[in-house]
Amino acid sequence: MDLRTDLALEQREINGEKADENGIECREYTNKFAKVTKIEITNENGEKKLKRKKGRYITVELDSMSEAASYLKECAAIIAEELRQLLPKDGLILIAGLGNDQITPDALGPKCASYIFSTRHIGKELQKSIGLDNLRPVARIIPGVLGQNGIETGEILAGIVKQVSPAALITVDALASRRLSRLGCTVQLCNTGISPGSGVGNARAEISKETVGVPVISIGVPTVVDAITLACDLVGEEAKSKMEKSGEKMMVTPREIDLLIEHASKLIAAAINTTLQPHMQPDELMALVM
Amino acid sequence: MDLRTDLALEQREINGEKADENGIECREYTNKFAKVTKIEITNENGEKKLKRKKGRYITVELDSMSEAASYLKECAAIIAEELRQLLPKDGLILIAGLGNDQITPDALGPKCASYIFSTRHIGKELQKSIGLDNLRPVARIIPGVLGQNGIETGEILAGIVKQVSPAALITVDALASRRLSRLGCTVQLCNTGISPGSGVGNARAEISKETVGVPVISIGVPTVVDAITLACDLVGEEAKSKMEKSGEKMMVTPREIDLLIEHASKLIAAAINTTLQPHMQPDELMALVM
Amino acid sequence: MDLRTDLALEQREINGEKADENGIECREYTNKFAKVTKIEITNENGEKKLKRKKGRYITVELDSMSEAASYLKECAAIIAEELRQLLPKDGLILIAGLGNDQITPDALGPKCASYIFSTRHIGKELQKSIGLDNLRPVARIIPGVLGQNGIETGEILAGIVKQVSPAALITVDALASRRLSRLGCTVQLCNTGISPGSGVGNARAEISKETVGVPVISIGVPTVVDAITLACDLVGEEAKSKMEKSGEKMMVTPREIDLLIEHASKLIAAAINTTLQPHMQPDELMALVM
Amino acid sequence: MDLRTDLALEQREINGEKADENGIECREYTNKFAKVTKIEITNENGEKKLKRKKGRYITVELDSMSEAASYLKECAAIIAEELRQLLPKDGLILIAGLGNDQITPDALGPKCASYIFSTRHIGKELQKSIGLDNLRPVARIIPGVLGQNGIETGEILAGIVKQVSPAALITVDALASRRLSRLGCTVQLCNTGISPGSGVGNARAEISKETVGVPVISIGVPTVVDAITLACDLVGEEAKSKMEKSGEKMMVTPREIDLLIEHASKLIAAAINTTLQPHMQPDELMALVM
Repeated sequence: MDLRTDLALEQREINGEKADENGIECREYTNKFAKVTKIEITNENGEKKLKRKKGRYITVELDSMSEAASYLKECAAIIAEELRQLLPKDGLILIAGLGNDQITPDALGPKCASYIFSTRHIGKELQKSIGLDNLRPVARIIPGVLGQNGIETGEILAGIVKQVSPAALITVDALASRRLSRLGCTVQLCNTGISPGSGVGNARAEISKETVGVPVISIGVPTVVDAITLACDLVGEEAKSKMEKSGEKMMVTPREIDLLIEHASKLIAAAINTTLQPHMQPDELMALVM
Repeated sequence: MDLRTDLALEQREINGEKADENGIECREYTNKFAKVTKIEITNENGEKKLKRKKGRYITVELDSMSEAASYLKECAAIIAEELRQLLPKDGLILIAGLGNDQITPDALGPKCASYIFSTRHIGKELQKSIGLDNLRPVARIIPGVLGQNGIETGEILAGIVKQVSPAALITVDALASRRLSRLGCTVQLCNTGISPGSGVGNARAEISKETVGVPVISIGVPTVVDAITLACDLVGEEAKSKMEKSGEKMMVTPREIDLLIEHASKLIAAAINTTLQPHMQPDELMALVM
Repeated sequence: MDLRTDLALEQREINGEKADENGIECREYTNKFAKVTKIEITNENGEKKLKRKKGRYITVELDSMSEAASYLKECAAIIAEELRQLLPKDGLILIAGLGNDQITPDALGPKCASYIFSTRHIGKELQKSIGLDNLRPVARIIPGVLGQNGIETGEILAGIVKQVSPAALITVDALASRRLSRLGCTVQLCNTGISPGSGVGNARAEISKETVGVPVISIGVPTVVDAITLACDLVGEEAKSKMEKSGEKMMVTPREIDLLIEHASKLIAAAINTTLQPHMQPDELMALVM
Repeated sequence: MDLRTDLALEQREINGEKADENGIECREYTNKFAKVTKIEITNENGEKKLKRKKGRYITVELDSMSEAASYLKECAAIIAEELRQLLPKDGLILIAGLGNDQITPDALGPKCASYIFSTRHIGKELQKSIGLDNLRPVARIIPGVLGQNGIETGEILAGIVKQVSPAALITVDALASRRLSRLGCTVQLCNTGISPGSGVGNARAEISKETVGVPVISIGVPTVVDAITLACDLVGEEAKSKMEKSGEKMMVTPREIDLLIEHASKLIAAAINTTLQPHMQPDELMALVM
């Protein structure tokens, strides 16, 4: 039976956490606010075991969403440092906020993108006049979803990437986890791109360097759990057989999903803005997401 | 172990559906769109068994939310007929949409109230000029919640009831169910009032004839499930012991909660408008919730 | 011809600013951020000339809305100091956010109320545990409008006031001004109550000590201008005759009304919170409206 | 002095309605619900006089917004018939909803696009299974604005057009008029493309066949008036000299702008859906915008 998850970290947990498996390398560190786990898939065996493409998967587990909200600057800094290592040092960065803004648990990407500080259109003179020199060029887009647009998100992004030629594309999207306790307070960064909608059993065309032509860094936060997976996790192994028979198939989300999305989208936006504008002051950066 | 539910119907299911228990009377009927179960608690034994006050509890189970949305007029008519039997024949009816409009799964009441056709302020002459004679007087209020207002919802309603003297108060609120499959497509009506927030473990002062001075008819639709109850229902009896130990306590809701709230609030509003304005045409009534 | 305005200050301007008129007393002061004008109507002659009831009308004119947003704490402090002088020193304060939250230029009151720090329900022990001692009891309500509720706003407030017995009621509402330049950056406080909707030619039952039984302090910010009044102000006296003939009657508002409402509602809420919680730190107070 | 307008019709009015001017051809017809004026600019003299590029400008003036809302189907059909004549008979149509969805008077385009029936992704088999054969392929996009994205809207659309190769692009945008009475109930269609933001003095890169490579049909509805232009129109010619001196420069919009945008965006969406899906029933088409 498949326990549904979008987190490489959880796939490894499900497999039994054998980090020394051929093709999977894993390191962790813990600090005051977070546990950071870095998984690298290095060959086909690792790909098969973790059901993911070769590449780096970094998971930042914050203590809780409310803690992350109280220590926004500190938590954003931890994510920012990991993101920095995945991005090219210079050049335009395009951020795409993926998902459906009409479905609260799927609105993480659009909401996060609304807090991104776009700078590509701000000329050098205007930058000086507002006291912000040395801004890195940043653009953002909220593309919508296939069902609304009639166009695959990957097609939209490929078209825009050709037009503006960013050094890299960052996607932000809502994910599925196997645990309620991870919703809203775990962040996965990876350098292998994304299949939007895969988290809710609605897989779309992949968005990756192969399909859009530039490196794709994807950032995701789990906001939903498959109901069966949830039950399985609460109940334990022996229950799996029963549930396999159940036809029920539904993604669930916490009652407090509105607040969760608000907090998590600010956290990710603060982390992205922090990474991309190292010359700005922390307070200026936090004000952008207020 | 307590399986958490706001539905008298589910409490009876949990007890083992002994409808002939002393103090509990139960009748059902089924039609094309719905199964209607009428439970009457007639004495203290019934109160103890069903953990509810003496009174009538009518549950309308629609086939599914999407079915209800497609057959809005027909489904609203079924609920309207049941509601009609609980209400006084004449006089002002006050509708209160309970809950927090900033929390999507709790926004059923406020959203429903926004579709109610308030008529108390429309003079007879204006009624004639817009071609709507014989309107029954209707008022509505969206009181907010204690955490926002610093005032118990029951206090607000008691104050307004004294001021406008309705023949009855209808409350509309989101409930908790034990089954995901009931969310958004089951409607409970009862004539015993309500404790707002009880559905999410946050019980507030009772709103009932005793506290506000007029009959209180409460209408509720389940929009959340307790995560443990959900697991229990998916897994079965033998899992209960394990889960009792788990500290995890969280209400969950489907990923499609925005649509569920939209549909369910229109359905309840259509039912209330239909009950209260028997002289209006079905198409006019449906247009009010578009 | 009547130039439409809800500001006592503008009525005085229109009359020709004869401050020494019998029954009208006027003082002003100016500081870095604002010009404050205090008009007191002391007898019937003053009432007739300024078309308002006896009482105090304080107008705070900020340099501009964007300035007020940048110096939120300083501007809120100026308004807070004036408000303090109008309020009883102790006891529960009830704040009512008047207006229709579905009409952007009318949403000032509801939006402002959403930023009010309600404390009436927070017990002494909880106050200590969150590090906030000595909180003054505060409650708030967003009553909606007659057209939605079928109940006069004054009736709703009278009912709630009887229930919770505040020492005073503060109403917050959107007003009409004669000048575009005042929209969003002028604040009027008065101790004579309010007729909601009067600003848009839709006068409702008065809300005042006479009707609700406790002192009513009303705070208003102009958000609309009558189109004819606007033309008149831009063009000058000689145009009045022409316009009197025009049947056109429409209230207009700036294109940037969404931002204006957001800023002004935060400003007023920050002023109210500052007045009512003198033991809280300025940064804590500002965080409440972020 | 320049009276600010985005309507070719109004520019002609301002010029004195000399329809027989060299290079300007004009025809009109009136029916029960609308007056339709077709202006064709045929040479450089016409371009200079009407300050617009060669091409066709069709203006549909509805009696009033509330009338248009009551007769949505009829009014949409009038606009649909004019739109049909501007579009290629076959092939994919891409609709772009231009403007800033955070600014109510500018949200016409995004809101309208949200009601467009996208079909490009619905396979033939799925079409049959839902009883909708012969759907014309339609896609839509809500690109956002330069200030949010850091990317010119024209660049985004050029990129997407290259990717999906539509037969034509339809843009929907909010315009500026010189008359309050036209807001929300006048529709301009033209086959010359658009400069987004030009209506509010914030001109952006042109979107036209020259810049995106396919025919661009633009549909616009005025939602704002320049305050000076408004005064001028209310007061008359002799006031112009005075107003030229005034520095005041502000776009205004009616107090009821939320309702205006809601109605107008449904009207335009209904017209577009009607044009593009001639095999669907009128009731099915209207249900798409409910």
